[in-house]
Amino acid sequence: MIIPGSLPGHAAHPKGLRPSRGRFAALTPEVTMQLIHTCYRIGDIDRSVAFYEALGFEEVGRMDIRDEAVNVFMGLPGDGARLELTYNHGVDSYELGTGYNHIAVTVEDLDGTLARLAEKDIAPEKPPYSIREGGSRLCFVRDPDGYRIELIETKH
Amino acid sequence: MIIPGSLPGHAAHPKGLRPSRGRFAALTPEVTMQLIHTCYRIGDIDRSVAFYEALGFEEVGRMDIRDEAVNVFMGLPGDGARLELTYNHGVDSYELGTGYNHIAVTVEDLDGTLARLAEKDIAPEKPPYSIREGGSRLCFVRDPDGYRIELIETKH
Repeated sequence: MIIPGSLPGHAAHPKGLRPSRGRFAALTPEVTMQLIHTCYRIGDIDRSVAFYEALGFEEVGRMDIRDEAVNVFMGLPGDGARLELTYNHGVDSYELGTGYNHIAVTVEDLDGTLARLAEKDIAPEKPPYSIREGGSRLCFVRDPDGYRIELIETKH
Repeated sequence: MIIPGSLPGHAAHPKGLRPSRGRFAALTPEVTMQLIHTCYRIGDIDRSVAFYEALGFEEVGRMDIRDEAVNVFMGLPGDGARLELTYNHGVDSYELGTGYNHIAVTVEDLDGTLARLAEKDIAPEKPPYSIREGGSRLCFVRDPDGYRIELIETKH
């Protein structure tokens, strides 16, 4: 649970999408609602923090939930604490199910990121590819609990 | 897969957290990586779009994945297309498992939001509460597939 101290001023503009019912939101001078973080449960704090740090995240803070759990907040520099990792004391694994899919992270240099991850023995599910001709290069990696992260390259 | 057209200029500042290892990130003039969206699979597009619209989201776009699936991008006004909902043709439900927890959304007026949701027969898991004295009021609702959304009130 994190309240942002400031608000991004602009909407992200989708790329390669067909607009739905002419609903592109006009930019508003003030954003009154935000999707501030995504939370999933992890089986070990240290291994998750090490993984997300290798990916470029920083640990922003920890919050004890009584003596039951610890919430670890991770964020990319300047991007806010957008990832909340919940460790429940004594629980070292979870059923991932089939519903949750991934978080997506933009990277400037996908090959460089993958090289950095390879040093930590983290490999992508398959080599980088593009969905369509001229589209962004992307690939997926899995965190220590098996949650997928989509890496999308922003350079062209 | 959405590439933001612009970048938020500031990190979200955590509130009520103990800092980890003095790692509060300095604000950077340019953000090079971002967590841009969270993706989960849904069993019916219309009912999910109706739910997230009741919550204040707007549909930003749809993308066909060959003839296999449709990705529906939803966003809060001015906040970017931070939610990707994947509908796989012919699949109407998923195992949610125990790993994924929730997304968190800030709202200015939690009671007003809950009243608006009540008109659509959407009730919170339990009435709003605060984690600690003077902390933000919050509650959880579930979307039509059962994914949890934390609503955190920003007014004081």
